[in-house]
Amino acid sequence: MNMIMPKGFSAAGVAAGIKKNGGKDLGLLLSDVDASAAGLFTTNIVKAAPVLLDMQRIRSGRCRAILVNSGNANCCTGEKGLQDAVEMSRLLCAPLDLDEELVQVASTGVIGEPLPMGKVREAIPALVGSLQTEGIGDLAEAIMTTDTIPKIATRQGRGKQHAYTISAVAKGAGMIRPDMATMLCFVCTDAEIPSDRLHRFLSRSVAGSFNRITIDGDTSTNDTVLMLANGLSGAVLESREQEDQFQQLLDEILLELARELVRDGEGVTKLVEICVSGATDPQQARTAADTIAHSLLVKTALFGEDANWGRILAAAGRSGADMDLEKARILFDDIVMFQNGGGQGKAVEVEATNVLKTEAYTITVDLGVGTAKASVLTCDLSVDYVKINADYRT
Amino acid sequence: MNMIMPKGFSAAGVAAGIKKNGGKDLGLLLSDVDASAAGLFTTNIVKAAPVLLDMQRIRSGRCRAILVNSGNANCCTGEKGLQDAVEMSRLLCAPLDLDEELVQVASTGVIGEPLPMGKVREAIPALVGSLQTEGIGDLAEAIMTTDTIPKIATRQGRGKQHAYTISAVAKGAGMIRPDMATMLCFVCTDAEIPSDRLHRFLSRSVAGSFNRITIDGDTSTNDTVLMLANGLSGAVLESREQEDQFQQLLDEILLELARELVRDGEGVTKLVEICVSGATDPQQARTAADTIAHSLLVKTALFGEDANWGRILAAAGRSGADMDLEKARILFDDIVMFQNGGGQGKAVEVEATNVLKTEAYTITVDLGVGTAKASVLTCDLSVDYVKINADYRT
Repeated sequence: MNMIMPKGFSAAGVAAGIKKNGGKDLGLLLSDVDASAAGLFTTNIVKAAPVLLDMQRIRSGRCRAILVNSGNANCCTGEKGLQDAVEMSRLLCAPLDLDEELVQVASTGVIGEPLPMGKVREAIPALVGSLQTEGIGDLAEAIMTTDTIPKIATRQGRGKQHAYTISAVAKGAGMIRPDMATMLCFVCTDAEIPSDRLHRFLSRSVAGSFNRITIDGDTSTNDTVLMLANGLSGAVLESREQEDQFQQLLDEILLELARELVRDGEGVTKLVEICVSGATDPQQARTAADTIAHSLLVKTALFGEDANWGRILAAAGRSGADMDLEKARILFDDIVMFQNGGGQGKAVEVEATNVLKTEAYTITVDLGVGTAKASVLTCDLSVDYVKINADYRT
Repeated sequence: MNMIMPKGFSAAGVAAGIKKNGGKDLGLLLSDVDASAAGLFTTNIVKAAPVLLDMQRIRSGRCRAILVNSGNANCCTGEKGLQDAVEMSRLLCAPLDLDEELVQVASTGVIGEPLPMGKVREAIPALVGSLQTEGIGDLAEAIMTTDTIPKIATRQGRGKQHAYTISAVAKGAGMIRPDMATMLCFVCTDAEIPSDRLHRFLSRSVAGSFNRITIDGDTSTNDTVLMLANGLSGAVLESREQEDQFQQLLDEILLELARELVRDGEGVTKLVEICVSGATDPQQARTAADTIAHSLLVKTALFGEDANWGRILAAAGRSGADMDLEKARILFDDIVMFQNGGGQGKAVEVEATNVLKTEAYTITVDLGVGTAKASVLTCDLSVDYVKINADYRT
């Protein structure tokens, strides 16, 4: 896979033997020079060892390299797990001549089993030796667990005098997969951006992308989004316009990856945007959207291509958000299914069912009590999801 | 089915043709005299017409009869739906010589379709004509939708000078079923209890039973629990001891029915009690228990008989409840799976898997930060649940 990379970044991915299937499972992203860094991590109280380490190190706002493994989450592994995370970062010091404090680490895979450090150690020379500008495809593969396709996105923009590039890789959404516990995303750019501004850009883009997707509602112990900006393009963001462009490009990249994560979720056959409008405030809109997006009855109806608006209305009704039944409306794309307190009859259901037969569509729920909005990306709940998650480890 | 009934109550159930399968779908519970009454209803903002009517009428604290249909929820049916609910209650006035204000109505079934009042009207004479002391079994059948077994429970106790009986019927838990939207439970007793005390007894028992079960987390638009006490046994509760006994018997009846509801849930193969202990307060204990009980990853692992404690720990971790990982413990029945910050190895997993192969067991999660407790009854999420809920209406 050949992708445009920001200047001064290289990447690699090799098979270290951690994953049972023999695939690539150790990845590296390296900046030629110290880069500004920002990170966002899981809100789960149970945090994996690499997350605990990264949260501490990211405070410096600087980073040179990200070392990541798949096949093992290094989570619930106690003091030994923390030592392993630190040792992982140290393995890069000699071959790359860098300070361990400038290395971020990430892990994804099974919870509760010790990281096979011997395998990681042995694979480091091959990993460092295969670093290349075009290596981002290998990195994207090395972070996959049961993802079916590697996920990469790139955009280019212009700063004051120079063009810059933003590239990112991501993997498996949340805890949707049987043998992993992580959504990971690594973003790099050659624009010059101080770490505090980088953090603001990243936070805003994540709020509009990864924090708006849900597959099964489970928040992992390892979720990590890291972003590095090394400035080597010479591009500086000076005007408000340039900043807005950067934000928009980053928004686009992360939203593209977020949609891919949902679409590639285990057993997923539908990508559905739940848009709630007419709420009294944004929080209530989000609460209603989340409740609908997580309802098993709604998700199984989406799988069954069943225009069952009663389940959507009932989910909104139990969400805690205010709603006026007489003014509320439910639409599948632009087909009005429910309004004036009642359903719109069988003819409309046929039209709605045609919408439900497509792979991606929008369900709009107007609560009829205000003007606030929120939207969430969700998916259907299929027989395959249950099979895969029930059969894991057996 | 022959069951002990409290004195002065009769019941009936007939087929009115509302349900497509031709089964019993219209039921009646009648007290020979005015009874004290208490009711608890869905917290969903979207409330079915009969719920709205009952909530208003129950304020009087008096009731003579409960008329219930299955096959149609009379929900999201607008002004016409409210008129239909009132008319339903009026149909009993002439044949039974009673005040419509003393009739409670309930409906369960499809949302959004008008109640077929013609069928209800036609079936009333047969329904009233078949009222009998032993009719509770017919009533239990008439409220079933896709329940596979009728659910009845009975207990007997003693008041000051006389013995009394409490009997109850219930149906389908929450919105677990494809074509209905209701948990219904009707309780009757011949003890003499004023309506305010009856409400307290009922509230406490429901908190420990129906409000502790979850199948898919969806709260229906029709949930209704009604209780009548006609005093015809002559039993009066005077001492604290007699009150405690009554509460305990009612607790037992409702818990028995609640467990049956979960066990008879669509596609359910496991009945699992989630006990959270060591929480900072009862609310946090409940929050953690609910989050674990609703986690798709946990529920699919239960279905797969997979001792995957990592998923349980991760669910507790994202619940918002405080937890100390070093002091936290997870047990399957009495098998300790996780403590001192780590798993207990493969040998223990084999033992735990034997627990998971049984039909009913307890998962205990000690959060390690306090002394508060809470427990919730849940079930597994099976392939059949998805199939049935996806295939509905197709």
